[in-house]
Amino acid sequence: MSAAGLRAEVESFLYDYAACLNEERFAEWPDFFDERECVYEILSRENRDLNLPAPIMGCYSHGMVRDRVAMLVKGTLTYRHMYLLHQVSNVRAVREPDGSIRAAAGLVVHQSSEEGVPSLYIVGRYQARLRSVAGGFRIVKMEVILDSFGIDTMLAVPL
Amino acid sequence: MSAAGLRAEVESFLYDYAACLNEERFAEWPDFFDERECVYEILSRENRDLNLPAPIMGCYSHGMVRDRVAMLVKGTLTYRHMYLLHQVSNVRAVREPDGSIRAAAGLVVHQSSEEGVPSLYIVGRYQARLRSVAGGFRIVKMEVILDSFGIDTMLAVPL
Amino acid sequence: MSAAGLRAEVESFLYDYAACLNEERFAEWPDFFDERECVYEILSRENRDLNLPAPIMGCYSHGMVRDRVAMLVKGTLTYRHMYLLHQVSNVRAVREPDGSIRAAAGLVVHQSSEEGVPSLYIVGRYQARLRSVAGGFRIVKMEVILDSFGIDTMLAVPL
Repeated sequence: MSAAGLRAEVESFLYDYAACLNEERFAEWPDFFDERECVYEILSRENRDLNLPAPIMGCYSHGMVRDRVAMLVKGTLTYRHMYLLHQVSNVRAVREPDGSIRAAAGLVVHQSSEEGVPSLYIVGRYQARLRSVAGGFRIVKMEVILDSFGIDTMLAVPL
Repeated sequence: MSAAGLRAEVESFLYDYAACLNEERFAEWPDFFDERECVYEILSRENRDLNLPAPIMGCYSHGMVRDRVAMLVKGTLTYRHMYLLHQVSNVRAVREPDGSIRAAAGLVVHQSSEEGVPSLYIVGRYQARLRSVAGGFRIVKMEVILDSFGIDTMLAVPL
Repeated sequence: MSAAGLRAEVESFLYDYAACLNEERFAEWPDFFDERECVYEILSRENRDLNLPAPIMGCYSHGMVRDRVAMLVKGTLTYRHMYLLHQVSNVRAVREPDGSIRAAAGLVVHQSSEEGVPSLYIVGRYQARLRSVAGGFRIVKMEVILDSFGIDTMLAVPL
């Protein structure tokens, strides 16, 4: 596949990922991850730049990823509901020698209250390693690296 | 056309649509719509999610679409002028069995006053049905679904 | 190359340009410009619309472009450090009869303080003329046209 073709495929994958979150189809979110091995981490850019290992939150297996959204799927988590819009921008993708894909993208999330008042929620980026599967990709590692790590809410839903 | 090819075509179309609005070429805006039948609606996400039918505004024919911008084209509408920047993000497109195209995209509009002060204006998304024509598309139905439906201005110009 | 193919190439180029700035690899920034002739200007949309010639800042040779980042590269410039995220959106590209490429894109930059607090920094657009070279492009002219020209910082780093 050409470089432009690979990027187009990765864009589609990340747009589907973002749509899943924006439309609050949380039960489908773990399907984006590789069942055999996967890592999902939210990190501050500061820690990342200083090579400090502590993430804001992390999941280190598919079971942990499923567990991340279990309370959302069952509807037992109580939190202030916000409408979210994920803008995934500037997608870049490279195929590695081992066949996996390294992908990066900008991420801006705007939140809107149920009264319709919008505000800037999250500024950061996705940095991912993907595995090709029939008809798409699975996430082997997803790092969400936040410029805006002073998060004013409880990160009730995944990014 | 491949799925990636279709998405690229729809991206071009929506970017042209946004450029028309950003550059205030309002006389050209109706040309994006199908002359025979077209719907243009601005809806709150709340109403949409609850299947409540009332839009914030709606046009149900090409004449109504032209009428929407008539006062802008003639320059008889007086309103506080703002520079607008439409970011159309995360474009997704599917060809339906009847040959029409279903398209979705994120929409964030920033406004800047004539003094150069920017602010977040609109957060929402486009949901459209398009018809293929020679060299592009025409809008059969365009829903602008707003997360930020507490609009602090009078929606003087289309979205 | 097809129109969609050209746009994809220009997207990749502008995303690489933005990544260079976001990742603060300022020494690499001049490499995006044509060594023989290049112009880099930051303009207010107001001046641009009125055909007033004064830019907010301008570089008119490759030496001036290198000079623009010299103090950043040497680390002798003292300024309040902010994390930046450039969102390049709605990329459009056309090949001109003389073989050069005219490109346009939306630009929104969010800044985040070292304490992790994000805010909207810049709203505007890129308007560029590019020259094709082996494996990519070089910038012959780059205009950064700002809707948000009341800039609350000192433009320490390039846009």
